[in-house]
Amino acid sequence: MKELGVLVNGKRLRNTLEEFAKFGRTENNGVTRLALTEEDRDARDYFRSCCEDLGMYVKLDDLGNMYATLAGIENNQPPVVVGSHLDSVEKGGRFDGVLGVVAGLEVVRTLVENDIKPQVPVVVANFTNEEGARFEPSLMSSGVLSGKFDKADIIKQSDTKGVKFEEAVDAIGYVGEQENRLKEAKSFLEIHIEQGPILDRELLSIGVVECVVGMVCYEIEIQGESNHAGTTPMNMRKDALFAANNIIAESREKLNKLDDALVYTIGRMEVRPNIHTVIPNKVTFSVEARHQDAETIKQVEGIIENLTKSTNKEGCVVKATKLWDRDTVWFDKGAVDVLEESTTSLDYPYKKMVSGAGHDAQFIANYIPTGMVFVPSINGKSHCEEEWTNWEDCEKGVNVILEAVLKMAVK
Amino acid sequence: MKELGVLVNGKRLRNTLEEFAKFGRTENNGVTRLALTEEDRDARDYFRSCCEDLGMYVKLDDLGNMYATLAGIENNQPPVVVGSHLDSVEKGGRFDGVLGVVAGLEVVRTLVENDIKPQVPVVVANFTNEEGARFEPSLMSSGVLSGKFDKADIIKQSDTKGVKFEEAVDAIGYVGEQENRLKEAKSFLEIHIEQGPILDRELLSIGVVECVVGMVCYEIEIQGESNHAGTTPMNMRKDALFAANNIIAESREKLNKLDDALVYTIGRMEVRPNIHTVIPNKVTFSVEARHQDAETIKQVEGIIENLTKSTNKEGCVVKATKLWDRDTVWFDKGAVDVLEESTTSLDYPYKKMVSGAGHDAQFIANYIPTGMVFVPSINGKSHCEEEWTNWEDCEKGVNVILEAVLKMAVK
Repeated sequence: MKELGVLVNGKRLRNTLEEFAKFGRTENNGVTRLALTEEDRDARDYFRSCCEDLGMYVKLDDLGNMYATLAGIENNQPPVVVGSHLDSVEKGGRFDGVLGVVAGLEVVRTLVENDIKPQVPVVVANFTNEEGARFEPSLMSSGVLSGKFDKADIIKQSDTKGVKFEEAVDAIGYVGEQENRLKEAKSFLEIHIEQGPILDRELLSIGVVECVVGMVCYEIEIQGESNHAGTTPMNMRKDALFAANNIIAESREKLNKLDDALVYTIGRMEVRPNIHTVIPNKVTFSVEARHQDAETIKQVEGIIENLTKSTNKEGCVVKATKLWDRDTVWFDKGAVDVLEESTTSLDYPYKKMVSGAGHDAQFIANYIPTGMVFVPSINGKSHCEEEWTNWEDCEKGVNVILEAVLKMAVK
Repeated sequence: MKELGVLVNGKRLRNTLEEFAKFGRTENNGVTRLALTEEDRDARDYFRSCCEDLGMYVKLDDLGNMYATLAGIENNQPPVVVGSHLDSVEKGGRFDGVLGVVAGLEVVRTLVENDIKPQVPVVVANFTNEEGARFEPSLMSSGVLSGKFDKADIIKQSDTKGVKFEEAVDAIGYVGEQENRLKEAKSFLEIHIEQGPILDRELLSIGVVECVVGMVCYEIEIQGESNHAGTTPMNMRKDALFAANNIIAESREKLNKLDDALVYTIGRMEVRPNIHTVIPNKVTFSVEARHQDAETIKQVEGIIENLTKSTNKEGCVVKATKLWDRDTVWFDKGAVDVLEESTTSLDYPYKKMVSGAGHDAQFIANYIPTGMVFVPSINGKSHCEEEWTNWEDCEKGVNVILEAVLKMAVK
């Protein structure tokens, strides 16, 4: 509550983030801390000891998710949960995920040092394997918690060395009880780096996230005919790469006319046989698009599916296959309001925005009133060693979470 | 000479081609006969025995090139040479190369059975490793013969198993003397499948080849910036793939305005990091173009080099590097005329044309008056198991070579 005038300790927050950055530190000051590796175990051990030092009780569930509970006055009431994930991608940064866990820790530290006993328990959570970098899919454990994924499938997922998820949880000693899983809660709050350039470009410290945008992903396959690059006249070719080029240009022209907030990406492309003296007979590429409105996504689908009838196919056959889609997840209006009020009461420059990236919060939102805030990513960079967020922005973001926890958990 | 009325034996020619197709035959009726393998040795042994059966004397040079000589009346005179290569690519066809060697054999068989003793020697040549499929580069031995390649470099070339060219020649017992190399000759004649669709589409049996077209090959490198596909607004991207798309479209528009005979191909493209959720930060692709006129190739170079200054770069940096070029090789006017006259005297439907593919003849042309004829490739297919040329067209093509040998070697 504003009138308490309680704020987090920025220096301590930074020190803690720097401590965590040691677990899996890379040469270039990034972090490689794949889920359930020794580096992850070290980070988890450190997190546990920090929590226990504060008198919190740490529980594990069957997926290796960690829940550190600060007791409240009424411990039979649903808790307020703050959390994110401690795993990283290969050569990732030191903020993605860990900031959300350390935020919870710093909130509790602030409560404890100010002798603020919350009315309801405050839980700090670390969800296993958010990145999906070692075991697919991403958002794995929050997906199981929310019923999106089936535990039986998930625990059999293997890493590239053939180690199964269930074996890996066991190997680092982090198997707990299924009954310990996060069930009900008053609210789940996650702070995360934006992973995009908007806050940084607009010189804002906080993004209050309203939703995680829906998306659709297609694979386009173009079948042409391979022939000798030197002996086949231009008008006798069925060049799959030229067809791909036409079709990409055509789709861009149409997609660019849709809403400005639409993002779409052709991230993956394979050319066959990929020899400089042979006309390509096959090009396969992905198109994914994201937008908060289902109607816009539907328009995108129409445009992509119509590419098969394009007149610019260069004699090739075009196939468009929808690989998957995902609806927009709107966060809880109440939680979003509390986070916005907290931000305004602290007088931080902010905007309400959407998340183009996926986060544990979007699955937890399925059964718990959830809210999320972003802090700026310098130049929008994440999942790389250059990933950075200014310490003052980290501090401001965690103050917003503290303020929201005070509003929600402290009478 | 027409008045002799001598023609080759089409049935024998077909039988011989079918015999050669057994050496390295693949499941789908193609041929895998990489240079200097056991399959190549078997084909060489068979070729040698066929030649010796005709009373020809077979010599080997230091590169494993084979020269079978039918003595003439004046054996101190430069010979007329007919030849090509017995090696194939992996899963290639039964005509590419072998037709040119078997043509020589069939010409000699026809001379012998008709008791025609040539005025000058007639040599049938088999050049080692034309395809470059086992040892790079292609046209290897004709390249050394003509001084384009340095023997010292070539013999150290290794296959994928680390076997050196010189070891491989030795292993199949085909090392000869450097002094046996093809030096001077009255003419070199090569018959080869077209490897393109023109003769087949135009229902012609013979292509009299005027030149092997010059070419230029560039690598285009586009450097953008990788960012998260979901969190980066379209107007804050530096998408290397979109830049590539624009630049390819721009170059095609300009290249299509040049001469109709120009062929250009983007055969190879790499996208990095090639992940569907990440904006590509790097796209590299090849552009190669072929045309007989140096002026046209110069225009192509201008267009490609100007792409670096395109206004459609999407904020990326574009680099164009010329990897190599090759001038057009014009065949000997006299040899081309003899081949054309031979074709017209036989009344075969033909056209004069250019070769977009490379052949031993283009290197031999460097020091010997050289001519070349094509026969049709069904649907333009070659270097694949479907490669096919109708037997009647093979026969017609070899009759053109016979006719030319009669004109050149027989008084």
